[in-house]
Amino acid sequence: MTTVLSPDELEAKLRGVGATRYHNLHRFHRALHDGKLDRTQVQAWALNRYYYQAQIPAKDATLLARLPTPELRREWRRRIEDHDGSAPGEGGVARWLKLTDGLGLSRDYVTSLEGLLPTTRFAVEAYVHFVRDRSILEAIASSLTELFSPTIISERVSGMLRHYDFVSEETLAYFTPRLTQAPRDSDFALDYVRTHATTAEQQAAVVAALEFKCNVLWSMLDALDYSYVLGYRGPGVFAGPETPGAFAS
Amino acid sequence: MTTVLSPDELEAKLRGVGATRYHNLHRFHRALHDGKLDRTQVQAWALNRYYYQAQIPAKDATLLARLPTPELRREWRRRIEDHDGSAPGEGGVARWLKLTDGLGLSRDYVTSLEGLLPTTRFAVEAYVHFVRDRSILEAIASSLTELFSPTIISERVSGMLRHYDFVSEETLAYFTPRLTQAPRDSDFALDYVRTHATTAEQQAAVVAALEFKCNVLWSMLDALDYSYVLGYRGPGVFAGPETPGAFAS
Repeated sequence: MTTVLSPDELEAKLRGVGATRYHNLHRFHRALHDGKLDRTQVQAWALNRYYYQAQIPAKDATLLARLPTPELRREWRRRIEDHDGSAPGEGGVARWLKLTDGLGLSRDYVTSLEGLLPTTRFAVEAYVHFVRDRSILEAIASSLTELFSPTIISERVSGMLRHYDFVSEETLAYFTPRLTQAPRDSDFALDYVRTHATTAEQQAAVVAALEFKCNVLWSMLDALDYSYVLGYRGPGVFAGPETPGAFAS
Repeated sequence: MTTVLSPDELEAKLRGVGATRYHNLHRFHRALHDGKLDRTQVQAWALNRYYYQAQIPAKDATLLARLPTPELRREWRRRIEDHDGSAPGEGGVARWLKLTDGLGLSRDYVTSLEGLLPTTRFAVEAYVHFVRDRSILEAIASSLTELFSPTIISERVSGMLRHYDFVSEETLAYFTPRLTQAPRDSDFALDYVRTHATTAEQQAAVVAALEFKCNVLWSMLDALDYSYVLGYRGPGVFAGPETPGAFAS
């Protein structure tokens, strides 16, 4: 990329990254929403994905601390409000725990992170570090996977409700607000990137940031698939029914 | 762990971590040294492991910067000297490149990190960040996988020479000095940990640090196995013979 793209060309390039690298293309995602997984496999997914959800406010706060204007900070602060809520039991992190509750997992176990796959931990922390260490432009661009998330959420919710009798609408409460929050957030981020990535170098950096973020999500599904579908679990991770302390009594 | 262990008990506990979590137990390692891999799979291993080798001096330098005495810094500086050498072509990183040369990979491609598995990148960077961000005691303890490496190196060298006609003793030159460097380094680190981990909390932290490091190495082999043995390669990574620029001409 040595020539400068127009904002529309840049947007098309970013959408192309999603079309080839977003994790809706991963075979674990397909298995999840096609009802091919058993209860332990869905539990493993929710447990590991919890760590991602729980770190999102940390990721957003590290960017918030670097944003230069009240306008930008207000916009970004709303993301933290969405995830943390304004009272106990509210917000996206609490709603994700309703999902792990609904799947029978103990909250103490889930929040202890004890049974987490090491690859989940490394991928999620790579995301937090990326947002902390890179330019504001790259940090904002890395959130652009939300451009593609309404599709995956609809697929996931309808597929999971249809196929799994251990999943209810209430359990999936996390996803409903995301259908409106994600487009609002990604509209802002996309507009910011279209406006501020004006050199060829900046444009290459925002494309790379979105690829990086797709890799984070993809790597998490690789590890779930390897460990829980193909069955090559490493030492010390969540192992289904025989895991002490993993289940609500 | 609420009672304080004696130094010998602590050492036994650390050796127990190696006996259950070191990556010589991983099925990809077994396949590698049993001659079950094809040339592309061995290339993928060497290519991904290159990034680990290349980041070790960064990891050691970040610790060096925090060590409080000339004695400790001299000890730790030797590790950087081992990896970087004192002239072009010397040192462990250069010797690893002889291995990737011997496997037919282009140096430009290897050092560009272009074809790296995302999980490799995240795991290696987790190690560098761990050593940068944790206590000196935990940082030193995380190097203790070297207690177990002479075994894996002997297995690897003899297994690879026996089974792969595309591997020679010269290609494997990296490993010979490690057979004396690793025990020297791990003697120092073990002695340091035995002496300085004197509270139950410190002892738990050093055990956790070694488990963390085992997870780094394990996660790297998970990703290699998933992508290159089971064949579920994600977008953009090294893909064997059809990868443009990957091979020396």
